[in-house]
Amino acid sequence: MPHTNLRINQTRFLSTIDEMARIGLLPDEAGGGRDRRPFSAADRAARRYFREAAEAGGLRVRLDQAANLSARLEYDDEDAPTLLIGSHLDTVPHGGAYDGALGVLAGLEVALTLQESGVRLPFHVEVVNFTDEEGRFGYFFGSRALTGVHTEASIAAFLDAADEAEEFDDLPAMWAQVPGQLDPEAVLAARRPGDSLAGYLELHIEQGPRLEAANVPIGVVSAIFGRRAWYLTFLGRADHAGTTPMGLRADALVAAARFIAAAPERVAADFPEAVVTCGNVEVKPGVANVTPREVTVWVEFRAGTEAELDGIDEALRRLAEEVAAGPGLAAQVDARSSSHPTPMDSGMQSLIQQAADSLGYATHSLPSGAGHDAQMLAAITPTGMLFVPSKDGRSHSPAEYTPPEDLVAGANVLLHAVLALAQPSGQM
Amino acid sequence: MPHTNLRINQTRFLSTIDEMARIGLLPDEAGGGRDRRPFSAADRAARRYFREAAEAGGLRVRLDQAANLSARLEYDDEDAPTLLIGSHLDTVPHGGAYDGALGVLAGLEVALTLQESGVRLPFHVEVVNFTDEEGRFGYFFGSRALTGVHTEASIAAFLDAADEAEEFDDLPAMWAQVPGQLDPEAVLAARRPGDSLAGYLELHIEQGPRLEAANVPIGVVSAIFGRRAWYLTFLGRADHAGTTPMGLRADALVAAARFIAAAPERVAADFPEAVVTCGNVEVKPGVANVTPREVTVWVEFRAGTEAELDGIDEALRRLAEEVAAGPGLAAQVDARSSSHPTPMDSGMQSLIQQAADSLGYATHSLPSGAGHDAQMLAAITPTGMLFVPSKDGRSHSPAEYTPPEDLVAGANVLLHAVLALAQPSGQM
Repeated sequence: MPHTNLRINQTRFLSTIDEMARIGLLPDEAGGGRDRRPFSAADRAARRYFREAAEAGGLRVRLDQAANLSARLEYDDEDAPTLLIGSHLDTVPHGGAYDGALGVLAGLEVALTLQESGVRLPFHVEVVNFTDEEGRFGYFFGSRALTGVHTEASIAAFLDAADEAEEFDDLPAMWAQVPGQLDPEAVLAARRPGDSLAGYLELHIEQGPRLEAANVPIGVVSAIFGRRAWYLTFLGRADHAGTTPMGLRADALVAAARFIAAAPERVAADFPEAVVTCGNVEVKPGVANVTPREVTVWVEFRAGTEAELDGIDEALRRLAEEVAAGPGLAAQVDARSSSHPTPMDSGMQSLIQQAADSLGYATHSLPSGAGHDAQMLAAITPTGMLFVPSKDGRSHSPAEYTPPEDLVAGANVLLHAVLALAQPSGQM
Repeated sequence: MPHTNLRINQTRFLSTIDEMARIGLLPDEAGGGRDRRPFSAADRAARRYFREAAEAGGLRVRLDQAANLSARLEYDDEDAPTLLIGSHLDTVPHGGAYDGALGVLAGLEVALTLQESGVRLPFHVEVVNFTDEEGRFGYFFGSRALTGVHTEASIAAFLDAADEAEEFDDLPAMWAQVPGQLDPEAVLAARRPGDSLAGYLELHIEQGPRLEAANVPIGVVSAIFGRRAWYLTFLGRADHAGTTPMGLRADALVAAARFIAAAPERVAADFPEAVVTCGNVEVKPGVANVTPREVTVWVEFRAGTEAELDGIDEALRRLAEEVAAGPGLAAQVDARSSSHPTPMDSGMQSLIQQAADSLGYATHSLPSGAGHDAQMLAAITPTGMLFVPSKDGRSHSPAEYTPPEDLVAGANVLLHAVLALAQPSGQM
């Protein structure tokens, strides 16, 4: 097999990661981590760093109508499709060094390594930094635009939110550079047809503890979880907390507590890969000396297949009815939002697996509990994702950490997945 | 036994109750019930009604330095002690017709009946309307003043709260009439020494469902519940709700829910008369997609004896430790406030029992889960309380209701308890 010995430049790659981690850094007194929310000065600095590194390496930089910034390694055949490799440089406030940045910088390193190696591929390689993955103004803004799921209304909502943001910084400056200047109609033109693409690959930190716990450096993502979210309201009766004997109460909070306490076991018993979380509770009247008459629980659950989501949905509705079966009690489900599970392309999973095998890395196949730009891309082109471990599963936190050898392993597997895609046995 | 056939004037009594119920009435569109918060125009109107009815019946009206308004039936011997009968005319917003008012108006009816009957008692009878029992500006303000538990600081705090109240109405007008004009130092002089008193009696609606459920018209109160209140905080870890497998979480809300769900059974098993209530829950960070790292539960429990309170305290601390025994979890009890149980005087309980027996009314001995002015009075003089039924246990609500025959039964038992107290077999 050709190019078996090709490796990324590990010194350059790790120093790129380090330099990017310093952009937008917050002092410890201010909570630490970094703040590269989209359109902030730090976001612009991160984009400038990416642009300069790409141009210095001979890649062609491109800014699309949704402010997605990419670096292209182009071959002679203009009509060849493009393999996208991407993620995002924006962070949440107090974000970690790797969430998003790893995928963009590993993509850049892969493109630079390919450029230097003289390897010729039957597709262009384009490394994309997607706009606002973290949803400061709208989740997956950039990848939604590229995959064509935006409407003028959804773009206008995003731009309105950006205009209203108090800490709104450099949007006008960025505006001027973006083709179409982020006009809602112009943003629609950021759409890329699926037949112009050879696929999409994304390297990301796991943001969970499974790989670390198993001491395995590479995760092959099987699917991105779908999610359903409910407001689950229990209705009871407000009674005087001193004068109403225990046996005569219809306490909505006791019913809600029985639900919250039992839900994890119910789900774990039949759906071991899935997760269920109650993130908040609202109690009315919410005073010390009156039994709660109305309690709303924020419930969400996630799983890798629609069948699992359906099964959990049914099990949790049954549980809610059970705990609210007493006199004076009732339960109401208000389904708020849902997203479908996104299976990763089986061919791409095989390529990642094959690349890891060829480099001697152990792998785990696992679902992604978090959302990623890959979710959007999967709708229009064969999409694969790979994970490297997250220490203690921490992310969206200054404590986010992945050991350098795992970062390098991830980038090399990404490189070899690209090479494998170019082989006759690959998908091309 | 003398005066066996004496009865209150039931027509006058019930019309007094009806007329008082109309003072401060709110239209149904505004939530109904009545609003006689202390120092409001409605409170002053209620006081005026009480004053005029007392004076018309030949009683002597007295306003003390804490704005407690009373009507005295005085006998020749100036040095005789005074039997107090009381409760309060103030209400919560949207209050019912009976909570408080029943005790004052039944006391007034008893005094008028005694006056008309020519019965001579070895003590003066003084019917008291205590100021701000419901705690608009400070719970039990009037009965605390009369029993001497106030300090200048606690009085100043009350007056400051009154000054700051947005809906503050007639305080300045009332001020001018009160001896000492509600100056903190003057209010201290409202204190009445225990040896000037022959006892205290209070008739009140149960505010709970026990008497109605047992179809019994008279409750002999054994004790007023003591109460302990906690902020019970569960500490866990904030994890990503999508990426953290169920088995690796330390979810503070699941621990809190297990506590809330199990606490009622734990308490009911060993302390059948006691009550425990979780009235509110505060969740941090309280968002849909992060497992809760800190959950504070507002816990309160009440019981009729200190030994029961101690036992429940221990059982609930043990339960909190049990549910927080998992890795990464902890529980912390922050005891916020407590009040001691107040046993009713056994002699007064016997007199009430004896009076009910002589009138042919069935009785139940039961603790009071709610607080009453009687709690304060018990510290300085033999104190007894009796209850009449509350439909569905409702109170602090326009739905508060007690059938007229039960109101009359309560007033007649109160009358005969007073008569019994005057007998050689009584406490005097």
